[in-house]
Amino acid sequence: MDPYTVFGEIVAGRAPASKVYEDADVLAFMDIRPFTPGHLLVIPKVAARSLAELDPEVGGKLFQVGQRLAAALRGSVIGCDGVNLFLADGVTAGQEVFHVHLHVIPRTAGDGFGLRGRPTHPQRADLDYLAGSIRGALDS
Amino acid sequence: MDPYTVFGEIVAGRAPASKVYEDADVLAFMDIRPFTPGHLLVIPKVAARSLAELDPEVGGKLFQVGQRLAAALRGSVIGCDGVNLFLADGVTAGQEVFHVHLHVIPRTAGDGFGLRGRPTHPQRADLDYLAGSIRGALDS
Repeated sequence: MDPYTVFGEIVAGRAPASKVYEDADVLAFMDIRPFTPGHLLVIPKVAARSLAELDPEVGGKLFQVGQRLAAALRGSVIGCDGVNLFLADGVTAGQEVFHVHLHVIPRTAGDGFGLRGRPTHPQRADLDYLAGSIRGALDS
Repeated sequence: MDPYTVFGEIVAGRAPASKVYEDADVLAFMDIRPFTPGHLLVIPKVAARSLAELDPEVGGKLFQVGQRLAAALRGSVIGCDGVNLFLADGVTAGQEVFHVHLHVIPRTAGDGFGLRGRPTHPQRADLDYLAGSIRGALDS
């Protein structure tokens, strides 16, 4: 398995990035293909291809940096009204770079960004059945 | 400000939910309007309307529970190939229930779920300018 990704190059300082935050474990920088102006990525410095590979302690920090960036975006020239956090884990989920990254996406009215899909309305018995299976998988 | 939400009622045990995980700080249960089968919500037990109001320690735990649920979904009858994490902070971001909630959405090929939007390709100078403003807001 080749651990190379462009995010690893950014962490190593070998690829350019417009950084907004850095500490011992986490780096945040501007997405070069933003859905909206100010779109940020928060990544672990130690490469992890997936949520399963990511140290949970660092995972928690990714979210906490996301919280801080959500506030900073509102206080910056971006001046957004809202923020979405988004993460894709796996090719089927839309993951393209195999180094975990949390998207922090500023939102303003009419920006055209959002979710695509149609909510369903299953029966409670069906939800309970799936919940039981998920609980079982958590415990195992 | 009325702190009432249906999620508060679920935490209090006054509204039904198909629970999959619970600890002192965090509760996870099936979304009753799932985008895909197995769609989960992870919430703090102490109500927080927004990321700004959410204790960062609990925020980190939300993500960590999301990591565990992403693994459990793959090991359950859902048998998904990927997982998306999603959070809407603010009306403009699509937030409808004003009690912070992290969506954990199982993905399989052709499920119809995804992001709506069109990535742009700004100049590096523009990214650097926005990054500077965001760094300034982080420090203030």
